[in-house]
Amino acid sequence: MSMLDNVRIVLVEPIFGGNIGSVCRAMNNNDITDLAIVNPRPTTDWDDARKLSCNAKAQLEARKEYPTLAEAIAGCTVVAGTSARTGFYRDTAHSPREFAQIGLESAKNHKIALVFGREDKGLQNEELALCTHIIQIPSSELYTSLNLSHAVMVCCYEMFTAAGAFHPAEEKAEEADSELRERMFATWREMMIKTEFTHEQKLEHMMMGLRRIFTRGKLTVPDAKILMGLAKQSIWVSDQWKKDTNE
Amino acid sequence: MSMLDNVRIVLVEPIFGGNIGSVCRAMNNNDITDLAIVNPRPTTDWDDARKLSCNAKAQLEARKEYPTLAEAIAGCTVVAGTSARTGFYRDTAHSPREFAQIGLESAKNHKIALVFGREDKGLQNEELALCTHIIQIPSSELYTSLNLSHAVMVCCYEMFTAAGAFHPAEEKAEEADSELRERMFATWREMMIKTEFTHEQKLEHMMMGLRRIFTRGKLTVPDAKILMGLAKQSIWVSDQWKKDTNE
Repeated sequence: MSMLDNVRIVLVEPIFGGNIGSVCRAMNNNDITDLAIVNPRPTTDWDDARKLSCNAKAQLEARKEYPTLAEAIAGCTVVAGTSARTGFYRDTAHSPREFAQIGLESAKNHKIALVFGREDKGLQNEELALCTHIIQIPSSELYTSLNLSHAVMVCCYEMFTAAGAFHPAEEKAEEADSELRERMFATWREMMIKTEFTHEQKLEHMMMGLRRIFTRGKLTVPDAKILMGLAKQSIWVSDQWKKDTNE
Repeated sequence: MSMLDNVRIVLVEPIFGGNIGSVCRAMNNNDITDLAIVNPRPTTDWDDARKLSCNAKAQLEARKEYPTLAEAIAGCTVVAGTSARTGFYRDTAHSPREFAQIGLESAKNHKIALVFGREDKGLQNEELALCTHIIQIPSSELYTSLNLSHAVMVCCYEMFTAAGAFHPAEEKAEEADSELRERMFATWREMMIKTEFTHEQKLEHMMMGLRRIFTRGKLTVPDAKILMGLAKQSIWVSDQWKKDTNE
């Protein structure tokens, strides 16, 4: 059982089915599965919701519905409400990144909830009063209103990232050691002489430039072998050319 | 001029107008304004794009269109392609958070690009070959395919956060000092005695519990004054009650 299984996403009176579907997809992308909807609207387009949920249709169908926010969060310890505004009772807010640490700590042993308001009006003060924390998502001062599924995505992404299960792909090939690297540079040196790329007096300066270029990132064994092979081929061509010219 | 002004979002052959509009909104929320579309499709629903862009309509209209990716990124130094898959030429990927540091460093002085592929097929290998970096967005192993605007949102959010312009709302009220805090606790102590809340021998133990409760978070001057006033009122009620009883 992962901590993320204890994270419940609560949408309060969402308007658009498309947004609800997109929320399901965002949750699914981040291994979060528990969706609750407070006071669903009769006008919501559930076909749109299904369409936008993509591969998260099961999640959408498994949603729980509650008449009030109090019922939707009854079993939760930490309850975080999202709010773009600050002011009255919203004076201490956490960024989604800060909250992820706090929330996951509690989610080790308890259900926690992240609560998102209506697309047009957000959460009311009485609803924020039920929350233990307020999350303020970083956004431009000029334009603080986020799309509902974008807000859920950022919060779920921070929870997922903080849970630490994901690591970006890393280079699997072995890093080249100095011996291989120096054999490669020696071949390039020979190539530059044989192809008459540079004057003898500029050669060492040119080699320093090449060293900087090739060692700026992590040079792997296959990288070094490709570069060495390439230089060897030019050496071979130079040799052929000189032989033909001499004949 | 902010570093974020140098960040260009490039969408390669996007299919759905709604996604393009949502991308504009996500960019706008994060102070990123430069949108380029590679090889726009004649079938794209631009009405949908306008609808979903909300307050970012100006951004949508100001988009630049290019026949090829090479032209869209011609003036950019760092070019980051997003990819869900790993493997061939995708062995070293950066998380959006890691990339934000690299990208912003270059964006101090140069245009940089973040490149997003088609909704159904992502970026082709020839397109990734034009990129200097690959970004892999953290996602569930079970479901790596993100909605296009969600992918843009996460990357823009990380760039915006790394640019450091945003700070969540902080408590503005002054923190209570020990003198005020102790006056408050003394009032509560008196209140517990006068209201006969607890036996004399349990009083100090109870006070320790109260101290823990009230100092667990940051207690402000207004907080302490509210709590003190509340206790004083109970003391006053107790005094009235005893006076009435004695009369």
